[in-house]
Amino acid sequence: MQTKYLAKIFVTLRPSVLDPAGVAVQSGLKQLGYENVDQVRIGKYIELTITSSDEKKARQDLDTICDQMLSNPVIENYRFDLIEVETQTGVF
Amino acid sequence: MQTKYLAKIFVTLRPSVLDPAGVAVQSGLKQLGYENVDQVRIGKYIELTITSSDEKKARQDLDTICDQMLSNPVIENYRFDLIEVETQTGVF
Repeated sequence: MQTKYLAKIFVTLRPSVLDPAGVAVQSGLKQLGYENVDQVRIGKYIELTITSSDEKKARQDLDTICDQMLSNPVIENYRFDLIEVETQTGVF
Repeated sequence: MQTKYLAKIFVTLRPSVLDPAGVAVQSGLKQLGYENVDQVRIGKYIELTITSSDEKKARQDLDTICDQMLSNPVIENYRFDLIEVETQTGVF
């Protein structure tokens, strides 16, 4: 039995790391008159589907994928939510 | 009275728009052996704080900010969650 999960992955800069893009956006917003906006941090949001025999296996795979490909663990953190979308039974 | 809100903003490509970065990531993952991953879509995740008199005003500001600066409405959608983090009373 294989289950398909939708993974919503958030990759964010570690709090100690400077975010030049965020600073630029904040400065642009101030020029547009939004003095009330602060602490802009820009990260990545990735959605994908992963098919696995169970949720534990899917989470293990996602940890490796996030570490190896989607984030730079030196400067970024990641977290993800898993949502079950489909269960398939039968022969593969 | 001013309230500070944390906004978590998701900017994603519209479903009809091709995502070359997502296709590249998916192809890379297949080369690493992750044949079970599909439909990779890469978007932006932005956190910021916004100080407003009330939540309605904060949401209006954020709609304008997302439309003008954080997304390209022709090819992208956005949505955001607002979390109240601090209420300040007194003279400013």
